[in-house]
Amino acid sequence: MTAGSDRATFGKRLQDATVAHGPVCVGLDPHTPLLEAWGMGLEEFAATFVDAFAGRVSIVKPQVAFFEAHGARGYVLLEWVISALRESGTLVLADAKRGDIGSTMAAYAQAWLGDGSSLQSDAVTVSPYLGFGSLEPALARGPEHGVFVLASTSNPEGPQIQHATDPNGRRLSQLIVDECAAVNAGADGLGSVGIVLGATVAEAPDLSQLKGPILMPGVGAQGAGPDEVRKLAGGLPGVLPAVSRDILKAGPDIARLRAAAEKFNEDFAFLN
Amino acid sequence: MTAGSDRATFGKRLQDATVAHGPVCVGLDPHTPLLEAWGMGLEEFAATFVDAFAGRVSIVKPQVAFFEAHGARGYVLLEWVISALRESGTLVLADAKRGDIGSTMAAYAQAWLGDGSSLQSDAVTVSPYLGFGSLEPALARGPEHGVFVLASTSNPEGPQIQHATDPNGRRLSQLIVDECAAVNAGADGLGSVGIVLGATVAEAPDLSQLKGPILMPGVGAQGAGPDEVRKLAGGLPGVLPAVSRDILKAGPDIARLRAAAEKFNEDFAFLN
Repeated sequence: MTAGSDRATFGKRLQDATVAHGPVCVGLDPHTPLLEAWGMGLEEFAATFVDAFAGRVSIVKPQVAFFEAHGARGYVLLEWVISALRESGTLVLADAKRGDIGSTMAAYAQAWLGDGSSLQSDAVTVSPYLGFGSLEPALARGPEHGVFVLASTSNPEGPQIQHATDPNGRRLSQLIVDECAAVNAGADGLGSVGIVLGATVAEAPDLSQLKGPILMPGVGAQGAGPDEVRKLAGGLPGVLPAVSRDILKAGPDIARLRAAAEKFNEDFAFLN
Repeated sequence: MTAGSDRATFGKRLQDATVAHGPVCVGLDPHTPLLEAWGMGLEEFAATFVDAFAGRVSIVKPQVAFFEAHGARGYVLLEWVISALRESGTLVLADAKRGDIGSTMAAYAQAWLGDGSSLQSDAVTVSPYLGFGSLEPALARGPEHGVFVLASTSNPEGPQIQHATDPNGRRLSQLIVDECAAVNAGADGLGSVGIVLGATVAEAPDLSQLKGPILMPGVGAQGAGPDEVRKLAGGLPGVLPAVSRDILKAGPDIARLRAAAEKFNEDFAFLN
């Protein structure tokens, strides 16, 4: 990654990357059943993933939990994975779903977005239970950094919280989209504050004013295809179908992994 | 820690600990201004904290973000801190505020509560934006493990989310308390599913049915004293005033650190 591209906004870098490589965000989920299926330990699995995708897809999403489950050893590996992918020009979205307040949230922002941090990524997912404003220390890092806020998820337990309503009767899923839209409003092109929106949610918020990236987990094995994604967000910029297990199941053969990602990028080429 | 005490429920171990050492949960927050005030690096700061409090207070709360900000190096140190404190018999509550779904949430539960995990703690804080049910992989670890769910926080941005209402007009802060109460209902004595409740919240949920621990940040420098804690939760079991900077500012002198924690335990002795 050149110094020049580092200074561009995350929204701009993401748009350039998806034009070059397609919209699919490849999930790096080294969970135990996959390690067993590949017949590999954590380190070899991650190295194979990097071999397969570094420089070849627009953006990858390491699932931090699967590294954290291995403690400091997992973090040593995650540092290497993030750095190797970013050096290849592939964007890294750390799926950490962090959320806290004040100086504690600032410490998370430093970990995942800070210059010089060993975990520095291009973007991070965050969780807003402590209020959208609590995320300010991450947003304050500026539009060179991507922040994806949980809005509406596909798991059956999600609506219990995400469909609760504010004093105006607005659902929290919509409130989060509106807050992100307000931050993106002044952006030149695609903004850098995105949302996480499950690709199989039954009732989606209105995304027409968001002007930011939309990460859509739930594509592939978990159920959604191009039709579902088109219905939720067709015509909007920055839509990133997140596919993990339906690509990773093609491994550990590198050519087959690349072919699986290419196939998904072709299926979702209408998004560009 | 003996094998016997490991098999007791977290609620029972917590009650025994607070009878022996008082109710105060000492926060381990190695943020930069404190490191500067103590004139120490991260490692020496953490070692001094362990020297001061291991075996001398009931429970400590490492703030994971301040370790994560140092990447893998921070996690190496956090593993040591957790293990040293637990070996001394002091309970460790990892303040991680993790939250995800399915196998990803299960990986976080493995990281912080799993037998054999290098980060295994006695309890962990979790965030419920993905629905209370999404936390099941942590709760399913059983009552030998403590889980503290964010309910209502003192930061001004919190009510935007936490006071949103479900279809019955119930606030999310109350909904979370009710969900925790349902899990604790069958417990013999204090349950193991707690909440996080800011000590300076203006409008607290009804806690009368919770039967679980109540972690109360916001005591000391941030504003609440014994009167505020008594008003919110007086007479309830398992109330843990969380104090960090008002104790840590007494450091790095070990005798002064211990005296500061003892003073807070005396001020809150009415909780036992």
